[in-house]
Amino acid sequence: MSSIKMFEKPLGMRDTLPEIYEKLELIRSTGRALLRERGYELIKTPSVEYYDTVGKASAISDARLFKLVDSQGNTLVLRPDMTTPIARVATSKLLKEKIPQRLAYFANVFRAQQREGGRPAEFDQMGIELIGDNSVYADAEVIMTAIDLVKAYQITDFKVTIGHAGVLSCILKDYTESDAQADDLNDLLVQRNFVGFEEAVLAFDLPKTKSDALLAYIADAISLPSIEAIEKYVRKNDALEYMRNLARILDAAGYEEYIAFDFTLSSHMSYYTGMLFEVFASGSGFPLGNGGRYDGLMQHFGSQVGATGFGLRVDRVFEAMPKIKVEKDEVLVLFTAERFAEALDAVQQMRAQGKQVTFQSYEGIENIEALKAHFKIINEYNSREA
Amino acid sequence: MSSIKMFEKPLGMRDTLPEIYEKLELIRSTGRALLRERGYELIKTPSVEYYDTVGKASAISDARLFKLVDSQGNTLVLRPDMTTPIARVATSKLLKEKIPQRLAYFANVFRAQQREGGRPAEFDQMGIELIGDNSVYADAEVIMTAIDLVKAYQITDFKVTIGHAGVLSCILKDYTESDAQADDLNDLLVQRNFVGFEEAVLAFDLPKTKSDALLAYIADAISLPSIEAIEKYVRKNDALEYMRNLARILDAAGYEEYIAFDFTLSSHMSYYTGMLFEVFASGSGFPLGNGGRYDGLMQHFGSQVGATGFGLRVDRVFEAMPKIKVEKDEVLVLFTAERFAEALDAVQQMRAQGKQVTFQSYEGIENIEALKAHFKIINEYNSREA
Repeated sequence: MSSIKMFEKPLGMRDTLPEIYEKLELIRSTGRALLRERGYELIKTPSVEYYDTVGKASAISDARLFKLVDSQGNTLVLRPDMTTPIARVATSKLLKEKIPQRLAYFANVFRAQQREGGRPAEFDQMGIELIGDNSVYADAEVIMTAIDLVKAYQITDFKVTIGHAGVLSCILKDYTESDAQADDLNDLLVQRNFVGFEEAVLAFDLPKTKSDALLAYIADAISLPSIEAIEKYVRKNDALEYMRNLARILDAAGYEEYIAFDFTLSSHMSYYTGMLFEVFASGSGFPLGNGGRYDGLMQHFGSQVGATGFGLRVDRVFEAMPKIKVEKDEVLVLFTAERFAEALDAVQQMRAQGKQVTFQSYEGIENIEALKAHFKIINEYNSREA
Repeated sequence: MSSIKMFEKPLGMRDTLPEIYEKLELIRSTGRALLRERGYELIKTPSVEYYDTVGKASAISDARLFKLVDSQGNTLVLRPDMTTPIARVATSKLLKEKIPQRLAYFANVFRAQQREGGRPAEFDQMGIELIGDNSVYADAEVIMTAIDLVKAYQITDFKVTIGHAGVLSCILKDYTESDAQADDLNDLLVQRNFVGFEEAVLAFDLPKTKSDALLAYIADAISLPSIEAIEKYVRKNDALEYMRNLARILDAAGYEEYIAFDFTLSSHMSYYTGMLFEVFASGSGFPLGNGGRYDGLMQHFGSQVGATGFGLRVDRVFEAMPKIKVEKDEVLVLFTAERFAEALDAVQQMRAQGKQVTFQSYEGIENIEALKAHFKIINEYNSREA
C-alpha cells in the first residue's frame, strides 16, 4: 500500500474542467446529430459487466481490465469497450424487435494502466454498430459514416485505411508451417512491427518460397495501398471480390479520396472477421478510431446475423480538430440585501432573453474585484444607488 | 461463484434502450441549459477514485461502495457521489482561479447492491455545487435553482423541505446524556423511523424533562412545518436566525409556496453542517433529490471556504414528470445496387433538410416488410423502376 495524498487520482484518471467539458459537449452534440440524421439510435449500457459475459468476449487483454468482485463472489469488469455490451443487448433483445439495428453510443470505456505514462485509463468513445445486415452496403455505410463524422469535426487531412482480417489470416496460414507461427506474425502486425515481422519470418526457417512470399506480400501491401497489389498472393477470392465491390461502392459515393487499402492491417480485437479499418489524421501516431465487421462476436452471443461498426476516440478527435472557441457572454449581477428582489427581477428578465447571468450577493465573497475580472458585463445593485 | 448466463448483467445494472435514452437526453439538455443560464459550469470527474481520498470522505457506507484494487495495491472505488470529487477538484485547483465556483454535473454514480431488489446500482445525478460563498444567499440560490429545475420538468406538485443539521444535532445533544445516544437518535431520524425514535428515547431512561422535550420537539416539528414550531427548544439562536433570514429571502423571491420546514430532517451524509433539504414530489416515497451546506467536507479537504449544493436523481425526475413524447418522423430509403448512387443523392438532400433517413440496401435484409413497419415514410429505389 502506498500512501495516497489527499488530491490524487488513480493512474490514468482525469478531471474534465469546464472549458474542456464544453468543447467535448460540442463534439458530442455534433456527433449525435449526425448519427441520428442517419437513423442511428443512441443507447447506454452499464459501466459494470460480468467478466464471464462481456469481459472475456471483449478482446481487451486481461491485464488491461479493471476487475472487481461482487457480494456473490462474481468477477465484474468496468466495460473495456462498447461493441461487446451492445452485441449483448442486440442479441438478447433488440434484434427481436427490428432487423437491422442501427445503434450508436457516446460512452466512457476503461483500460487499466500499469504505470504512469500519460495514457488515459478512462476515455470517451463515440461510435455506431450496424447489426443484422450482412451486405457490403453495411460495411460501406459504416466507413462513409466514419468519414462524414470526422469531416463534421473540420478534420480535413485524414485517411481511412481498409484491410481484411480474413485475407490476412489466410495469407499468414498459407505461407507458414503452423498456427503458432501465423499467430506470432499476426501479433507483430498488430503492433505495426515490420522489422520484427521480417526477423520472425527468417527465424522460422520456412521453405524459401514461403518466406519470400511473406516478405514480398508485406512489401507490396505497404508500397501500394490497393487491392491489386496483393491479388497474386491470395487464394481467398471471394474476400477480394468483396473488397473490390466495397471499393466500387465507396467510389460511386464519392469517398475515394479518403480511402486507402492496407492488407497488413490487423487488430488486437480478435472478433473482427472480415473488413476492418482505421482512421488516421495526418501527423498523428495514433488512429482517431477504428472499426470493422465482427460477425464472430455475434456468433459468440449465439446470433447468426452479421454486424459491422466503428468507434472514434473522442480525446484524439479533440486533439486533431481545429481549436474550438466557445463564445462566452456572461453577465455578473451583484446585489446587496436591500436590493435583492429588484436585482433578481432584472436577472430573471436577462435569463429569459437567453443570457448567462451569475447572481451574486456582495456579502458572499471577500474579493469582489477578483470575481469581476472574470466577466465582461457587470451590473451592480448596491444600496447606495438604491 | 455462481454460473453467469450469457446475457446477464450484475445486480442493479441496467441497459438504457433508445426510447428511454432520448427522454433522458431531453432531461439532460433541459437541465444543462437552465444551469448554464445561471452561470454554472459543467465538469466531469473520473468514474474511479482512491478509497482513501474520495471513498472515505463521501459518507456513503462502506458496504455500498464498489471497491477494486489497482496494480500498486491501492484500493479504488467507483464514485458513490459527485459532491466529494467536486470538492476535491475545487480545493486542489478551481478555487485558486475564481471564488466562488458555480459548478454543475450530470453524471452516473454507483451504489453496490447486496441483493436483487429493483434498486439501481448505477444511476444518473444532476446537480450543482456553489463553493466559496458562505452567505445565506448561496443557500437560497441553491434551493431556488432546485425548485426551478424541478419546475422545468413540468413537475408542479412538489415540496422542498428544509432542515438544519446544526440545530438538530444541538437538540439531540442537549436532551440526551451521551454522544452515543444522540447518534442513535440521529440514525433513526435519517431512516424517518419516528416510532423507533420514541422507543429509543424511552429506553434511554433519560430525566423526564429531557425525554418529554425530545418527544415534544419531534411532535411539534412534524405537526407544524415552520421555524416557530421549534424555537422554544433551541439554544442555537444564530442558526435559527439564519433560517429565518433564509425563509425571508425565499419569500421575497416568490418561492414560498414550494417551501416547508422540517427540523427532524437528517441525512446519512455526515458532511452536511448547516441547512439541508429534500425535494419531494407528491405521491412519491423517495426524494427527487436533496442538498445542503457541507462546509465540513471542504474542511476535510483543508479548505476554509463554505459550500452548498444539491443533486437530483434523474431516474426519479423521469418517473415524476409528465410522460415525454419524443416525436419521430423517420424516413426509410431502400435501394438496389443499380440505383445506389441515385438513392444516396436523394438521401443526402433529405438529411440536409434535417430529416432522419435510414439508408438500407434490399440485399442486406431478409424481411423487408418487417423493417418497413417501423417507418412512416418509405422511398424505394428498386431496379424495375429505374
